[in-house]
Amino acid sequence: MADDPLVIFTPSGKRGRVPAGTPVLEAARRLGVDLDSVCGGRGICSKCQVVPGQGAFPKHGVTVGEGALSEFNEVEARYDRIRGLKPGRRLGCQARVLADMVIDVPPESQLHRQVIRKSAIERVMEMDPAVRPFYVEVTEPALDDPTGDFQRLAAALAGQWRIEGLQADLPVLARLQPILRKAGWKVTAVLRDDGRAPPLLIDLLPGLLEGPLYGLAIDLGSTTIAGHLVALDDGHVLASSGLMNPQIRFGEDLMSRVSYGMMNPGGAAEMTAAVRAGLGDLARALADEAGVAAGLIVEAVIVCNPVMHHLLLGIDPVELGQAPFAPASSDALTVRAADLGLEIAGSARAYLLPIIAGHVGADAAAVVLSEQPQQSDKPVLIVDVGTNAEIILGDRSRVLACSSPTGPAFEGAQISSGQRAAPGAIERLRIDPETKEPRFRIIGVDAWSDEPGFDAAAAAVGISGICGSGIIEAVAEMRIAGLVDAGGLIGSAEQTGTARCIPQGRTHSYVIHDGRDTGGPLIAVTQGDIRAIQLAKSALYAGARLLMDEFGIDRVDRVVLAGAFGAHISPLHALVLGMIPDCAPDHVTSAGNAAGTGARIALCSRAARGEIEAEVRRITRVETAIAPRFQEHFVAANAIPHAIDPFPSLAAVVTLPGIRFNAGAEGDRPRRRRR
Amino acid sequence: MADDPLVIFTPSGKRGRVPAGTPVLEAARRLGVDLDSVCGGRGICSKCQVVPGQGAFPKHGVTVGEGALSEFNEVEARYDRIRGLKPGRRLGCQARVLADMVIDVPPESQLHRQVIRKSAIERVMEMDPAVRPFYVEVTEPALDDPTGDFQRLAAALAGQWRIEGLQADLPVLARLQPILRKAGWKVTAVLRDDGRAPPLLIDLLPGLLEGPLYGLAIDLGSTTIAGHLVALDDGHVLASSGLMNPQIRFGEDLMSRVSYGMMNPGGAAEMTAAVRAGLGDLARALADEAGVAAGLIVEAVIVCNPVMHHLLLGIDPVELGQAPFAPASSDALTVRAADLGLEIAGSARAYLLPIIAGHVGADAAAVVLSEQPQQSDKPVLIVDVGTNAEIILGDRSRVLACSSPTGPAFEGAQISSGQRAAPGAIERLRIDPETKEPRFRIIGVDAWSDEPGFDAAAAAVGISGICGSGIIEAVAEMRIAGLVDAGGLIGSAEQTGTARCIPQGRTHSYVIHDGRDTGGPLIAVTQGDIRAIQLAKSALYAGARLLMDEFGIDRVDRVVLAGAFGAHISPLHALVLGMIPDCAPDHVTSAGNAAGTGARIALCSRAARGEIEAEVRRITRVETAIAPRFQEHFVAANAIPHAIDPFPSLAAVVTLPGIRFNAGAEGDRPRRRRR
Repeated sequence: MADDPLVIFTPSGKRGRVPAGTPVLEAARRLGVDLDSVCGGRGICSKCQVVPGQGAFPKHGVTVGEGALSEFNEVEARYDRIRGLKPGRRLGCQARVLADMVIDVPPESQLHRQVIRKSAIERVMEMDPAVRPFYVEVTEPALDDPTGDFQRLAAALAGQWRIEGLQADLPVLARLQPILRKAGWKVTAVLRDDGRAPPLLIDLLPGLLEGPLYGLAIDLGSTTIAGHLVALDDGHVLASSGLMNPQIRFGEDLMSRVSYGMMNPGGAAEMTAAVRAGLGDLARALADEAGVAAGLIVEAVIVCNPVMHHLLLGIDPVELGQAPFAPASSDALTVRAADLGLEIAGSARAYLLPIIAGHVGADAAAVVLSEQPQQSDKPVLIVDVGTNAEIILGDRSRVLACSSPTGPAFEGAQISSGQRAAPGAIERLRIDPETKEPRFRIIGVDAWSDEPGFDAAAAAVGISGICGSGIIEAVAEMRIAGLVDAGGLIGSAEQTGTARCIPQGRTHSYVIHDGRDTGGPLIAVTQGDIRAIQLAKSALYAGARLLMDEFGIDRVDRVVLAGAFGAHISPLHALVLGMIPDCAPDHVTSAGNAAGTGARIALCSRAARGEIEAEVRRITRVETAIAPRFQEHFVAANAIPHAIDPFPSLAAVVTLPGIRFNAGAEGDRPRRRRR
Repeated sequence: MADDPLVIFTPSGKRGRVPAGTPVLEAARRLGVDLDSVCGGRGICSKCQVVPGQGAFPKHGVTVGEGALSEFNEVEARYDRIRGLKPGRRLGCQARVLADMVIDVPPESQLHRQVIRKSAIERVMEMDPAVRPFYVEVTEPALDDPTGDFQRLAAALAGQWRIEGLQADLPVLARLQPILRKAGWKVTAVLRDDGRAPPLLIDLLPGLLEGPLYGLAIDLGSTTIAGHLVALDDGHVLASSGLMNPQIRFGEDLMSRVSYGMMNPGGAAEMTAAVRAGLGDLARALADEAGVAAGLIVEAVIVCNPVMHHLLLGIDPVELGQAPFAPASSDALTVRAADLGLEIAGSARAYLLPIIAGHVGADAAAVVLSEQPQQSDKPVLIVDVGTNAEIILGDRSRVLACSSPTGPAFEGAQISSGQRAAPGAIERLRIDPETKEPRFRIIGVDAWSDEPGFDAAAAAVGISGICGSGIIEAVAEMRIAGLVDAGGLIGSAEQTGTARCIPQGRTHSYVIHDGRDTGGPLIAVTQGDIRAIQLAKSALYAGARLLMDEFGIDRVDRVVLAGAFGAHISPLHALVLGMIPDCAPDHVTSAGNAAGTGARIALCSRAARGEIEAEVRRITRVETAIAPRFQEHFVAANAIPHAIDPFPSLAAVVTLPGIRFNAGAEGDRPRRRRR
């Protein structure tokens, strides 16, 4: 045995001398190397597997000889026999360092393993969840040691894991004694340590926990509640599910729910109960889908807009409905998950991201966390399209945020043939500029409508309507094909040269598909549909433009379309429609459900929580509801793509016909939507 | 104006120089002088009243001239007009120091005013409750300040009171917005700061709170629940009330309740619900009696034995019923008062004192806090007599504690003519050693039974039975008068020479009062009564003796009888009975409900909580249930006063007749009572 051999850990490169005979796990701890262990070095959890190096390591100036580690011992042999140990691997708690050594820690043995997130900006995230398992063996009570079981558990955690100041809620205290006894005093303590409050005993599991713990990342929207069940060891998603927000029966948009609470005594409480029941259903559905016991789900992160935030917490949102739109509480909050209807592990907590302002919620904060505008060299505009759109503009210098009430038109509501994105819905559409004939794709069928096999496949599914992305493409294509003018007016058959433009009262509709002879619907884009889309896109554009004014720019470098729906929007069509400011189409990207991603990041990383809480304090909030320029921008954005603002990047790719159909007596003015 | 005049505060003697013009309140803060203020110096709460000195103060080396304080100002004049200010007093926040000054802070202006407690040891306690009111004016929300109301309240408390890190529970957050608006943003924040957790917003009251806040001190016993409503400014008791523990229907003593929980699924939960309902009733009764709004009761302190502790917290006490008697949790606990059935202010907390051991509860800890054996120069024995007796023995060197299952005989239960202490109950009794005739006093009548006026007064009340103190005196007097021998046997009429000793089966009874001719009961002490008292007193004595063995002494210097019942026990008769070890009768004193007093002390003083938590860790627990010597002591203590131990101090005062009635076939042996 060499005196104090040198140990070098890879990939960290951390190195140092330890007394000969030191177990690798202990050496890793002393040198600050990230090597996982749940059992605390008892040779039963196998989390501390390492790969010893052999031979010469000129880079490290070390040559590892035979016998530099202790021999494969009985504990390792037994583990290998029962569970199997990959060739070349050792248990870090059993293998002892006898001479100079290079030891590799494979990713799955790293507690804080790095996970690469692909998004607008690729970034590496470190797994660092607030809740982790700790195996302990608790001293049994004795007549001469009359302290409580909880105090002896706390002492075991202090002695075996150096965790001090353990706390517990009553429901967990109440279950402590039978669990400890049934488990023979060997338990896995599920502890929450968010780096702020003292360590909290979330639950106690008998014996050694073999698999990971789980968490929920929930994006609570006005219309839908989407959730992910995430493994807290490596952050992978085991199940994703969504359901309609049961509050919809109280009002489609946020302001109608605020009104419901104001008009009906007990109405806010009724909505609170409804959304909590919905969260409970979602959690059960996710646990069932993944086949995970609810008791192993130990933390939840929830992002939502301010009205949903208040209703979920049992706070009447009435103040969010009137200037100055003061939230009851805007900082990040940690509450008991059970209090929010989540029947998960014992005393599990739910973490709610901070609210940015009375109209800009924790969902927007989650988008910032996911998309990191504050890391962008050039101004990036992030638009989370929903019933209420969150709009964020920023670069390294500053970040601005607002929300804008787009209404549900982009989600297919308020559209005559509109429907939710489901099989049979037209999701993509092209119109031949010459023939004015449409071709389209429906959800559930791969082929386009003019391709072989479509009819047979579509007959099985049915062609039932147009979803959000379909209506955006339809209106944009109609504009490109000269069926709709810049004012948003649909031309007559005579003006457009196609019989698909049929009269409807004093206006016209464009027929996409007539399924009436086979018992299906007539699917058309009506003048009313165009007006609804114009209102929605104007609100979105005006919000973005207001932020650009505040930022002092009239062009953005990139646009990120976020939201579950954003992923399905064609960048080119969004530009033709004028939903977003002009930008090179290949600089318009989709981030998927960025709010949900942000929730997942906050679930996996305590550091990310601190980061977004600090960032939210720096964000400049812009209030669209009272900005006079918002109205100006809104009116100007009514045209397709825009009455005033130039769209040079778009013009380089698409030429829009300079047609103008006579508006005649119509001349309806866009109205500001009620929030 | 003098430059930096010298200010001397009395009675603290603190002194220092402040810039001329400094308000007295500010000067007090700078010099660390305890001067109360709820409004933070706005001249509206009047808590900071001071008495300026005038003339020469040779002791302080200062002469106070005219104009050393600023003139009585408009704020003070208005306050004096509306509320009245005592002559010579000034408001500390308004009066400014202009020249050298001596300022007296009267007791009622001291936040941490001292309260003298009279007890076995007189001691001074400083008012230092965990919950205090803070008046603040909160910045209104504005469109350009979109932070939450809670964050602005926290900022106001930080700015105006230097209170950082405010936290709040959901129910209080939910009520924040309407309260702030109705109160015009001027509120009294009721804050809990126990010196451990971050400051917690217990509740928010509109405007300035005029009166004090209140707390509850609750002694939750197996048989009765006693509570005090205490003002948190000066610690005075506004109301005291008690009720039967509703758990009695599940079993009279603790072990029968533990059994009930073991035998009946859901039984523990049923008992938890019952005791929480009882606490709720008690709190309402106390608030009603004192005319105090429940919302002003902002903290509760609860002391109880371990079984009641667990049942109250919703923990199945099954482990407390079997060796090694491990509690689920033994440390002091702070929980939401609402979780324990206490419907008091918003997020009020309940503090439970630590448990000493599985059989020695927080009530014993409260007795230690009240009686301070650890401050005693000579060994003092403290006996809290109840269904389960807590026994504490200690001096400056160490403190020992145990509990002993005396059963309910001392409370009049299991006694043939026994009853609770209520009007009509015989509470004191003397027997003439010559005539063997008794004379007695009943509750509700001042005269003794042989004094004029007794018959008429007693006829109105009725002579209904014997209460606990009465039976102790009766048995002791019977022993002194030679009606009962040392073995506890009642003699026949022939053996004792009095016809009052009547046969009853194979044994005898002593008739105290025969009311049968007026429709009342025959009140007698039966042989069974004597046996019940012997069992109870043997358990008590054996527990005390076990502690003395452990302590290494065979005499104690003082005995303190605690418990509501302890106050009514005659020291001499307790010694004759051999309930307590021999001691000079004038060294046996009563401490009243010491557990309840301990709860009050913990309610009024954060320091006291820390003190008793530390002391409990030092206490040596003695487990009577498994100590072999307990059985020996128990058997030897069956004799009256004792079979072996000498009672020299008693013998100096009373000579007990050396009689011995033939036990014949009786010879029943004392049995160990089931816990």
